[in-house]
Amino acid sequence: MKAEILTIGTELLLGQIVNTNTVYFSHRLNELGIDCLYQTTVGDNKDRIKECLKIAFDRADIILTSGGLGPTSDDLTIETIAEFFSEELIFDQEWADYLAQFFAERGRTMVSSNLKQAYRPKTAMKLNNPVGTAPGIIWRVDQYLGSKTPKVIITFPGVPRELKAMWEETVHSYLANNFSAQQLFYKELKFIDIGESALAERMQKYLDKNDPTVAPLAGNQECRLRIATKGNNRDSAFEKINQVISAIREEVGEYIYGEDQDTLELAVGRLLIDKKKTVSLAESCTGGLLSQRMTSISGSSQYIGLNIVTYSNIAKEKILKVKSETLLQYGAVSHQTVYEMAEGMIDLADTDYAIAISGIAGPTSDQTNKPVGLVYIAIADGKNIETHEYNFGNAERDIIRYGATQKALNLLRLKLLAS
Amino acid sequence: MKAEILTIGTELLLGQIVNTNTVYFSHRLNELGIDCLYQTTVGDNKDRIKECLKIAFDRADIILTSGGLGPTSDDLTIETIAEFFSEELIFDQEWADYLAQFFAERGRTMVSSNLKQAYRPKTAMKLNNPVGTAPGIIWRVDQYLGSKTPKVIITFPGVPRELKAMWEETVHSYLANNFSAQQLFYKELKFIDIGESALAERMQKYLDKNDPTVAPLAGNQECRLRIATKGNNRDSAFEKINQVISAIREEVGEYIYGEDQDTLELAVGRLLIDKKKTVSLAESCTGGLLSQRMTSISGSSQYIGLNIVTYSNIAKEKILKVKSETLLQYGAVSHQTVYEMAEGMIDLADTDYAIAISGIAGPTSDQTNKPVGLVYIAIADGKNIETHEYNFGNAERDIIRYGATQKALNLLRLKLLAS
Repeated sequence: MKAEILTIGTELLLGQIVNTNTVYFSHRLNELGIDCLYQTTVGDNKDRIKECLKIAFDRADIILTSGGLGPTSDDLTIETIAEFFSEELIFDQEWADYLAQFFAERGRTMVSSNLKQAYRPKTAMKLNNPVGTAPGIIWRVDQYLGSKTPKVIITFPGVPRELKAMWEETVHSYLANNFSAQQLFYKELKFIDIGESALAERMQKYLDKNDPTVAPLAGNQECRLRIATKGNNRDSAFEKINQVISAIREEVGEYIYGEDQDTLELAVGRLLIDKKKTVSLAESCTGGLLSQRMTSISGSSQYIGLNIVTYSNIAKEKILKVKSETLLQYGAVSHQTVYEMAEGMIDLADTDYAIAISGIAGPTSDQTNKPVGLVYIAIADGKNIETHEYNFGNAERDIIRYGATQKALNLLRLKLLAS
Repeated sequence: MKAEILTIGTELLLGQIVNTNTVYFSHRLNELGIDCLYQTTVGDNKDRIKECLKIAFDRADIILTSGGLGPTSDDLTIETIAEFFSEELIFDQEWADYLAQFFAERGRTMVSSNLKQAYRPKTAMKLNNPVGTAPGIIWRVDQYLGSKTPKVIITFPGVPRELKAMWEETVHSYLANNFSAQQLFYKELKFIDIGESALAERMQKYLDKNDPTVAPLAGNQECRLRIATKGNNRDSAFEKINQVISAIREEVGEYIYGEDQDTLELAVGRLLIDKKKTVSLAESCTGGLLSQRMTSISGSSQYIGLNIVTYSNIAKEKILKVKSETLLQYGAVSHQTVYEMAEGMIDLADTDYAIAISGIAGPTSDQTNKPVGLVYIAIADGKNIETHEYNFGNAERDIIRYGATQKALNLLRLKLLAS
């Protein structure tokens, strides 16, 4: 049983809105174990919509459409589908009455064009819309160009909220009862400090497996492995998945910071809470990005007291007590400066750990001749201060800044794990 | 001349990432006056990719693909296109050398699978990737199944940043020189502190016009108007556009902070430089987000000296000299506390302005019964300190934090304009 997604709307072709409906459909089909092999977007044009319907029905059994159910002359989905199957449209008096009431209740005037939404193909089932004026259809066509299996088309409005409400109320159970096959179950492992290709090479024997499948995915200066299997039973599927995960953890566990929806800042926050530790941050080139990431986690006030962005040398001296000779002799971007920044920060904030970052985020260097992309990070734990040097190459400002926060979070993660 | 977009990647079909590349392609094709009538997404599967190529070449002249250029065995785009046109792959020693250097410069190890990225179809042109390891191809095929016009396929990696850099560096001018028809010219005006529908209502007479067209677009807690016209002459197109812009500026100019690629933090940074002023930031609930936004602008070290994130009350007292009685009597989220935070900050940092933010970003309140979404912002200018109260409702943490930084930046913008 294969499904295909057809999103309809010239505004999508013009890039005026981001197509999030396909993401929603994909997740929900996935849950039901219904494969979706193609997604197509087409504008508000009858001939081209028909061409897409033809292509889709030749390779799939279920088509989900979104868009084109509104009251304007641009909204062509229902009449085009009816024409495609040479079926007449009928007027649904019950929905027309509902529309009149919908407008009346909101003190809005219903114009005659709104009644267009009360038409549907004669043999199609109305798909109720609990939160808007546009209903959809669920239409099962048993005879389609000699196909032995029935074809089903389900239409949704383009408004994400309405589409979701209709899926929840009706479509999920309709598909589950009639078409659900094996479900796809999966887990993702999240990796830091190892590249996608290096990871793929080390994991080749898992990547070659068919069940569960293991696939590497790139992230923002980190990467993931997705371990997936199909089945009818959740528990036995996850048993299979977890066996592979245990094996992977044994081989490359030191790079794994979390699973599924975890972010690195969330994983580090969890460790800080578990170990009852606190941290303070002194940032220069990252300008508060590390603080922003760490405090984006709800509950982070438990482990974060004070973060400081010392962009200028004066601030580094005045607040963090970095010695002016150090700045003069080694520059703000140096092992020595981040060492003193971390030292000053831990004195000031009285936390278990302090992290200090200073680097050249570009696009130009500072008054020294140090290269763009050079970053120093110090981590202090009250007893020792370690400093690290990184080189992000001549990358964009955002990349260097984000990369520096990835490195800093990972340093803290490793410290916490070892503590 | 028609184009078609083919995005490749099983992760798109599974809904694991939102497809923003189609939006980017659409905008850029639009600018060049090249119609795009279909967008298709397909997984990492050779047969299905070939089927999509067949369908696309039957109805379009230019295909843009994204995804599948990586080093792993899932990355099939180049070899599938070569097979589709029955062309052999050749090894590009120059790119292989570049790859080796790319890895060496970053202190990373190149594994043998990375060399896969150095292959391309013999008669295809290499499309340089200035920011990553995966180059694309630009391939013009003059003989395709009896078509009288040539077919062109251009491949991009799935990583948005790399795709954009390749478009800017090479593809824009390639398409403009070879295929552009009537170009679309446009400018965007960027608005703060007025909602999309309120703006649309005030701009109705412009929205009804056909040339130039004026369209309202939503943004992240701000909005835009796009003023667009088609033509063959850049100067006369922009003359038309600028006339409309002048009229709009007269009516709602106070809400306009910039144009086109401007961000609010960039506009404020420009004003700070123009007026030779400096600012320091004391953040609580925004956790460094404002600092991060302001320092994301290259050159911001000219106007930012010191930013502090005082998440805890102790830090507010110790560093910013907020009185403990104030915190006790009014709470950390109050007019009085942000007043004292701004006062303390301007004393500490000795800047022309200081901004202080304290609020409840949620998901839960603090020990007081103040509602989630309540935010206070103070702005000090060395003589006066103003405080403002905002209520973002029970929104998500990220929305409240971002919204608070929008308000703070706009307060500073208005102060600077009035100075």
